Amino acid sequence: MPCTVGIVGLGLMGGAIAMALRPLRILAHDTDRVILCDAKKSGIIDEGCDDPAAMLGRCDIVFLCLNPSTLIRFTETWMAAFKTGALLTDIAGIKGSIAALAERVRPDLDFIPGHPMAGAEKGGFANAGLVSFAGKNYILTPVKRNKPENITVLKELIGRMGFSRISETSAADHDSKIAFTSQLCHVIAASLIDCEEDREITRYGGGSFEDLTRIAMLNAPMWTELFLENREKLLDRIGKFEKSLDEIKGLIADGPAAELEARLTAVRERRAAMAG
Amino acid sequence: MPCTVGIVGLGLMGGAIAMALRPLRILAHDTDRVILCDAKKSGIIDEGCDDPAAMLGRCDIVFLCLNPSTLIRFTETWMAAFKTGALLTDIAGIKGSIAALAERVRPDLDFIPGHPMAGAEKGGFANAGLVSFAGKNYILTPVKRNKPENITVLKELIGRMGFSRISETSAADHDSKIAFTSQLCHVIAASLIDCEEDREITRYGGGSFEDLTRIAMLNAPMWTELFLENREKLLDRIGKFEKSLDEIKGLIADGPAAELEARLTAVRERRAAMAG
Repeated sequence: MPCTVGIVGLGLMGGAIAMALRPLRILAHDTDRVILCDAKKSGIIDEGCDDPAAMLGRCDIVFLCLNPSTLIRFTETWMAAFKTGALLTDIAGIKGSIAALAERVRPDLDFIPGHPMAGAEKGGFANAGLVSFAGKNYILTPVKRNKPENITVLKELIGRMGFSRISETSAADHDSKIAFTSQLCHVIAASLIDCEEDREITRYGGGSFEDLTRIAMLNAPMWTELFLENREKLLDRIGKFEKSLDEIKGLIADGPAAELEARLTAVRERRAAMAG
Repeated sequence: MPCTVGIVGLGLMGGAIAMALRPLRILAHDTDRVILCDAKKSGIIDEGCDDPAAMLGRCDIVFLCLNPSTLIRFTETWMAAFKTGALLTDIAGIKGSIAALAERVRPDLDFIPGHPMAGAEKGGFANAGLVSFAGKNYILTPVKRNKPENITVLKELIGRMGFSRISETSAADHDSKIAFTSQLCHVIAASLIDCEEDREITRYGGGSFEDLTRIAMLNAPMWTELFLENREKLLDRIGKFEKSLDEIKGLIADGPAAELEARLTAVRERRAAMAG
């Protein structure tokens, strides 16, 4: 099909998606003109547009690659500018408020909320080339009004980008699971660095410390927003983690050793049984 | 120099060290005859010895690749069998009790405690080929009676194995730092799996969950021993981590958002300033 893709927000993920969707025709909007020029010069996009209105009216599919609050504000501000019948999607790490937005867009538009589960330690368009989609998960949280044929089109594009597993679930289920697999892990990584001041401690790392703290290089404004928007579910997950940690701590403190060993064996078996 | 190396315990690490020290002459002892045969057949060792006494008397350098308690028992049992003037070392992840052992070996022996900070998710000799030493840390915790020239010899061997950073510190300092970089990380990974029963949860992983739980595939008997032997320092580190986690949880629960964002920014900067 003849298809023009619009990318709103040419940051780390917007840039990576643009690269992955070539050779489709790609237009992009960003508040940073220099990035738009660089992206056009390097052939990653066909056209950079300062003015969203000038771009949105020409795009069959739009990827909104912005932080949740900016995304909602942008979509509401430019609602009239989207092309008739356009397919909209996003990449936000939280889906509750995005699903609500998807339910209230212009009647002819079809907004399918999505979450590509990929990233990099360093942010921004300059690092977009570091993001790999191969073998990664992509979660879609369709709303009632989404058209099945558009979900099919979006899935085809996601597959073309290189993602290997596409799951569909509700926004609430997504936010609950992501509170565990992503947000809790970021809170833990942050806490690990928060409690250690020694900059030379990495001399004593054997891989596990590096693995657990790679994601401590976090984009603070974005993660603050994601944590706060998913506050209730995240606090629940932190609480459950603290309970397990406290019980294992208790076994280390008071034994019996056989019970600690049995608990660790159960952990090993449970992790081994988890796919991927 | 003409040098025969002895490996006691041909498991994951013993096997990996044997492979890394070729083409030196290597003898090995293990309670599993099949492993000794396999290792000899595949050319990883020159000779497998069922009887420790038959081997120890011929080795200039001995790597004791056993869990701490087994290591101490083995060394005390076979103390008379080591070659006069032999250099002994170990690979245990805890150094307090090993340093004490190193102080009480036969007067002509020189036991330099060490900790190669490498491993793999799967254990045993069959997986030794999965262990990479390139770019990894190796910690030595020499005791007073160690001869400087032997420390030099050992460092030369460690460099030959491929390790990139060799640090020297006291057993107490090692155990304190390792309680953080290694043991706490394993306790956290175990707690993360302990608090989640859904085997399909990995469909919602984006890399961080996988990074944080890779080490949950732990060797339960070994880690039980390591945790319990370093109980006091590990409990201290868990406590500090819980304090940071609790404070960040408090900011997520009650804000203010700006303070949460500032805390996450500080984490990012601190992690970035840590070498490696």
